[in-house]
Amino acid sequence: MERVVVRVGVIGAGNVGSALVAMLLDESRFPALIEAVGAPLRLVAVAVRDTNKPHPGVPSELLTSDALSVATRDDVDLLVELAGGVDDAYRYVRAALESGKSVVTANKALIAAKGTELEAIARAKNVDLIFEAAVGGGIPILRALRTSLVGEKIQRVMGIVNGTTNFILSAMTSDGAQYGDVLAEAQRLGYAEADPTADVEGFDAAAKVTILSSLSFGTSLEGAAIAREGISKITADDVAFAKRHHFVIKLVGVAERVGEYGISMRVHPAMLPESHPLASINGAFNAVFVEGAKAGPLMMMGQGAGGDPTASAVLGDILESGRNCMLGRRSATPDVETNLTMVPQSELQSSFYLTLDVLDRPGVLAAVTKVFGDHGVSIRLLEQSGIGDEARLTLVTHLAMESDMAATLEDLQQVETVDAIGSCIRILGED
Amino acid sequence: MERVVVRVGVIGAGNVGSALVAMLLDESRFPALIEAVGAPLRLVAVAVRDTNKPHPGVPSELLTSDALSVATRDDVDLLVELAGGVDDAYRYVRAALESGKSVVTANKALIAAKGTELEAIARAKNVDLIFEAAVGGGIPILRALRTSLVGEKIQRVMGIVNGTTNFILSAMTSDGAQYGDVLAEAQRLGYAEADPTADVEGFDAAAKVTILSSLSFGTSLEGAAIAREGISKITADDVAFAKRHHFVIKLVGVAERVGEYGISMRVHPAMLPESHPLASINGAFNAVFVEGAKAGPLMMMGQGAGGDPTASAVLGDILESGRNCMLGRRSATPDVETNLTMVPQSELQSSFYLTLDVLDRPGVLAAVTKVFGDHGVSIRLLEQSGIGDEARLTLVTHLAMESDMAATLEDLQQVETVDAIGSCIRILGED
Repeated sequence: MERVVVRVGVIGAGNVGSALVAMLLDESRFPALIEAVGAPLRLVAVAVRDTNKPHPGVPSELLTSDALSVATRDDVDLLVELAGGVDDAYRYVRAALESGKSVVTANKALIAAKGTELEAIARAKNVDLIFEAAVGGGIPILRALRTSLVGEKIQRVMGIVNGTTNFILSAMTSDGAQYGDVLAEAQRLGYAEADPTADVEGFDAAAKVTILSSLSFGTSLEGAAIAREGISKITADDVAFAKRHHFVIKLVGVAERVGEYGISMRVHPAMLPESHPLASINGAFNAVFVEGAKAGPLMMMGQGAGGDPTASAVLGDILESGRNCMLGRRSATPDVETNLTMVPQSELQSSFYLTLDVLDRPGVLAAVTKVFGDHGVSIRLLEQSGIGDEARLTLVTHLAMESDMAATLEDLQQVETVDAIGSCIRILGED
Repeated sequence: MERVVVRVGVIGAGNVGSALVAMLLDESRFPALIEAVGAPLRLVAVAVRDTNKPHPGVPSELLTSDALSVATRDDVDLLVELAGGVDDAYRYVRAALESGKSVVTANKALIAAKGTELEAIARAKNVDLIFEAAVGGGIPILRALRTSLVGEKIQRVMGIVNGTTNFILSAMTSDGAQYGDVLAEAQRLGYAEADPTADVEGFDAAAKVTILSSLSFGTSLEGAAIAREGISKITADDVAFAKRHHFVIKLVGVAERVGEYGISMRVHPAMLPESHPLASINGAFNAVFVEGAKAGPLMMMGQGAGGDPTASAVLGDILESGRNCMLGRRSATPDVETNLTMVPQSELQSSFYLTLDVLDRPGVLAAVTKVFGDHGVSIRLLEQSGIGDEARLTLVTHLAMESDMAATLEDLQQVETVDAIGSCIRILGED
């Protein structure tokens, strides 16, 4: 049977879902969409939690509360999963793939946890599982990795992939404000959730790093344990120091090759030189910086969240998969590389920024610097400030092994004149 | 017959060609390339001008001086045209397409002049004509426009798409040097040609704007006349003024929608606010800034030239087209939109920066400002500087029609106290 239309079912009509429905029903764009797919797209169902609630812009005859049936019914060729969460979404996506439907999703948590398993089903059924919007909202970074750069040996992918934390850190940088005050303001403005943990502690960014790594290096998508550190301990003093020394503090997600078969994935705050392309990405913007062996450094930036930008990325996936559907094929996806090993954080090198609250006594400097020396960690900058009995030491190290730095921190806690270890932030992007 | 290998012929073994040959022969990358294409790529011929000259890295048995036969011989499935120029390249590409071979090229001049005609042949023969490397070197911007953003209504594309001029303007900004001195230095370093006209007068950028516009709006690729202005008249004073007022001068290529069916394409120097994402793109880097109706602002940056980055983009095209070749299909390309009209520069609006050399006499300000007022051009900033009899006026206007500004400039030449009109630079990116 020749297909004359591609029938689309959508699960979820929140911010992104309703923006997508508006795009699919915008008649002025029909010619462009038909040209891209080779046939019209027809929206046949929109599953929502409660069909009695108002869903402006969604024709009421398309509404249903039976999400699982949208995933499996015969008159849907392509499922768009925008429900969010992992468990329910997993059921819908798996059911759709098993019914031979292609799936487009924006669900980073689902893909980071179950992507490899779901992709295997998609391959077996010769259908697509595409998820551009799962990383970087409207930025077409994943498609670039799986098409333009598929022949490129990628060395490192480093991104600002969480808008909430970038908004907070940008505001701390421009206003000199403290973390807690800026977070409260971000919550008031709707840039941060009432419970901000997933964003500020780096869980959201970690899921995105898992996905970036899988497309850059072929690592598996099955809930990889990623070294993860959030921004909640960053102080106004840290930001001021960074500014004075021409650095900017960003929450970065990094996936990189270590040697030929090692991969490191991590999320942590980092001081980046002001001249680094990622340093100028402010507010809720996202950006991903890719270093390829031949392509050299590349960066893509754009809106990392929001209904329209995210829906725009979802629409791009629908057009790709819709065209595949017309041609009876699927898009290429990278194999999982089985010969890669995860390199623990302790085996990596970095420069570190560190603050110590110390007693302002003779000999304190000697005691502190001895600990660094004992572990072979070389100091490149040391500032002392403070009033009366208490003083603050700020140190920046040369490149040091993470394990040596960890041992240094442990020993510093035993030094009698050290009151407290304050911040410890990695410095990246100087190479 | 089932295809078990995709056979590639290359015309041209210069910088890009030899980098590409190295990538195609790098055995460590074979698994990745086979996975992307679905079959091995086999390099079967490399056409060069003189087979007796040394071509390091190119196996001598692949060398031939008969480029046209590489374009047509039966054992080539996919032609890579890296010869450059228009006339010969046109013959090769046309012959290859007519023989039913897909073509990958990095030749912006060829595509800007003959793209629509060649694309029609490619369509008729159901083969590809792909040219990612023609704009922005290693930056995958064209693929983003024809895949991820194909459903997006693009409002504007603005790019720094010429590395030579960006190198010169960046150096003028960081060193305060004059254009001529920096150009000479750029020539010494190999960043500028002995005859720099194509770069510094914006011809190269204009070809790239033609291509960006065709993929963003569906305009035709047949040597469109683009309003074009180069950087050779930019002075150190202009750069200093920009710096003082937090602007950066860049050579920008712009293609944008004007109303529903109007398109403007142009290349000219522009003052951009320091906070604009394009303002921080320095040296030989390129970047393209895309404003989509739904996706919002997006920017992609990377290395705009050089053997490896350009060859990396060519390789991405080869993999896309090689996979198509295995599946007996071609990639989707936008139709030429026939209902678009070119909007002349005179109908656009801009703010302008302008310098005037004037006689330092009473009444000169009144005479000058009257001319602006007569044409309805409103002044938002005026600086006067100078020594003795001569003075320099620097003015910045509010938004004004280009035609009104042109009339103002014409009348200013008639003002007795105006010695000379110096620079006139548009200010963009403030909206």
